[in-house]
Amino acid sequence: MSDKNTICQMRRLQKACEKKGPLCCGLDTDPSYIPPEVLKKYRAPAAAVLEYNRKLIEACAPFSACFKVQIAYYEAMGIEGMKVYADTLQSLRNVDIPVISDVKRGDIAATANAYARAHFSGDFESDIVTLNPYMGFETLNPFVEYCQEKGKGIFVLLRTSNPGMADIEKLDLKQGGIVLDRIGSELVRINESLISEPFLDSQSTKNTFPCGPVGAVVGCTEESDARQLRNKYPNMFFLIPGYGAQGGAARIAATLLDKAGGTVNSSRGILCAWKKSSVLAEKRKAGNLTMDDIVTAAAKSAEQSRDDLLTAKGSL
Amino acid sequence: MSDKNTICQMRRLQKACEKKGPLCCGLDTDPSYIPPEVLKKYRAPAAAVLEYNRKLIEACAPFSACFKVQIAYYEAMGIEGMKVYADTLQSLRNVDIPVISDVKRGDIAATANAYARAHFSGDFESDIVTLNPYMGFETLNPFVEYCQEKGKGIFVLLRTSNPGMADIEKLDLKQGGIVLDRIGSELVRINESLISEPFLDSQSTKNTFPCGPVGAVVGCTEESDARQLRNKYPNMFFLIPGYGAQGGAARIAATLLDKAGGTVNSSRGILCAWKKSSVLAEKRKAGNLTMDDIVTAAAKSAEQSRDDLLTAKGSL
Repeated sequence: MSDKNTICQMRRLQKACEKKGPLCCGLDTDPSYIPPEVLKKYRAPAAAVLEYNRKLIEACAPFSACFKVQIAYYEAMGIEGMKVYADTLQSLRNVDIPVISDVKRGDIAATANAYARAHFSGDFESDIVTLNPYMGFETLNPFVEYCQEKGKGIFVLLRTSNPGMADIEKLDLKQGGIVLDRIGSELVRINESLISEPFLDSQSTKNTFPCGPVGAVVGCTEESDARQLRNKYPNMFFLIPGYGAQGGAARIAATLLDKAGGTVNSSRGILCAWKKSSVLAEKRKAGNLTMDDIVTAAAKSAEQSRDDLLTAKGSL
Repeated sequence: MSDKNTICQMRRLQKACEKKGPLCCGLDTDPSYIPPEVLKKYRAPAAAVLEYNRKLIEACAPFSACFKVQIAYYEAMGIEGMKVYADTLQSLRNVDIPVISDVKRGDIAATANAYARAHFSGDFESDIVTLNPYMGFETLNPFVEYCQEKGKGIFVLLRTSNPGMADIEKLDLKQGGIVLDRIGSELVRINESLISEPFLDSQSTKNTFPCGPVGAVVGCTEESDARQLRNKYPNMFFLIPGYGAQGGAARIAATLLDKAGGTVNSSRGILCAWKKSSVLAEKRKAGNLTMDDIVTAAAKSAEQSRDDLLTAKGSL
C-alpha cells in the first residue's frame, strides 16, 4: 500500500498545469520531422532524434506542464530507437517534469502484468501511461495497482480525436447510451475506489475538482462532445489530443480544460514548426540550417500554443 | 503493388496447419517460467530467455505450424528484452517458420504508420501481427497496405478469451447484434477487397475455404460462440487463444478449426511443462536440472497438444 510520501502523478500533473498552463509537449519524433540537411549530420536517424529530443526538452520545458512520448516512433527505429526512447525518458526524469508514455497497451492477465511492469518500472519507466480498454476492464487492473502502490497514473481511451472513432466508440447501445459511456462509468468507479487513498488527500491542489489517478483521453475535435463529457466527468483529468496539427481548436480544448482540467497535447505543431518559418527556409536553401534553429522554432511554437490555450481558457 | 512472387503469409500459415497440425507455439517467455536453478546459470534473465527460446524453436518446430511471440514479456525486460525479442524473431526466420507477433497495437494516422513500419520491417519484422481495432477501422489501413504490398497478415481482435471480454466486445447494439459483429463485418469487407490479388490466387491450398490476409482472434472459451463465429466467417483464418493454461478445451478449438481453420495457441502449457514432471521435480531437488531438461519437457508437451488438437478435430 502507498504511504503519505508517495506522489500521485496525476495530481502532480494537475498542479503543473495550474502553474505553467495546460500544454503537453509531444515527442512523436519521427526522423522525417527533422530537415534532411540537419539529419544527415548525425551518425544515424536515431542519434538525431535523441539530440532533438534533449534540446526540445530543455527549450520547451518552461512552456510545458508535461511531455508525452509516443512509443510507436521509437519502435519503428528498432533496437536503436528503443534505446533513444529509454534515454529520452531518462532526460525527462533529469529535469523533473511529468511524463506521459503514449503506449495505448491493452492485454489480459499475465500479459497485462508484463506491460504494467514494462512501462512503470525499469528502462521504460514512466509516470503516466495511456491504455486501450477494449479487451475489458480487468485489463486495467495491473496498472491500477501501480496507481495505488506507486502513485502512477493512467489515461484510458474515452473519446479519441480521429474520424474513425465513430466506428466503435460511438455505437448506440440497446441499454441506452454509447459504447464510450460504459468506459467512462468504469473509470469513475475506479477513481472512487482509489480517491480515499492517503497520498491523494495529502496533495491538495487549488483546483476545486481534485482528480484521481485515472484520467481519460478526450480529443478536442467536437464542441458538443467536449461540453457533454466535461460535465459528465467533472473530477476526471483529461489528456486532450487533436489540437494543432490535427485541426482541433483551442476553443474546444478550453471547454475540456474546465472543472478538473486537462493537458492539451501538441506534437507535430511543435516538432515541425521549422517548416513554417520563411527565415529558416532561406537558411535551408543556403545550407546553414542547424539543429538549434529548429529547436528555437519549436520552443517559440510551444510558447505560442501555451498562450493560445491560456487565452482561450480565459475567454470561456 | 504485389507481384506473383509475393507470399501471402496467412495462406502460408493455413498451409502449414494443413501439413503439421494447428498448434501455434507461444513464446511468452517470462523469466519466471524458467526454474530459478536454471535461470541463475545465466548472466541475466534475458540471456536465459533467449537461450530457452532458441532451444524451444528447434525442439518444438516439428510439432508447430507457427510460433507466436508476445512482445509484452520482452518490453518488461527493457532494452535487453527488446534485443532478445529481435534475436528471437531472427531465430524464427532462420528456421523458415511462420511467425505471429502478438503486439495488439492500435493507433491513428502517422502513429499507426509508425507501428506498421515497426512490426513489418526492420529489427522487429514479423510475418503477421495482432491488432486492436478499438479506435476505428482506419487504424488498420497502414497494416492492410503491407498485406497488399508485401504479403503480410493481420489478426484483429474479434472475440478474446478473457472473462472481461463481455465488458465491451459483447455489448448489445441498438441497431441489432453486438459490438464484435461490427468488427467482423469490416474484416470480411477488407478481405474481399484484397482477395482478388494475384498473390492470393497463385497460392492454392487444399482447404476449400482459402483465407485472405486478414484473420481474427477468436478465443476457444465458449462452444456456442465458437460455432456461431465459425459459421459466420467461413473464409476467415482464426488465431485461437485460450487453449491449455487458459482452460479452453480442445473440443471448442476443434469447432473453430472447421472451414478456413485456424491456429491454436499454447504458451504457458508448453513453456511451463517442466512444472508437471515428477522426474524433473526430483532433478530440481538434486540440483541437476538443466535447460535441456525443460526444453525436452516443453517439446513433449507441444507434441501432446498437437495430437490432442488433431484428435479433437478428427472427432468433430
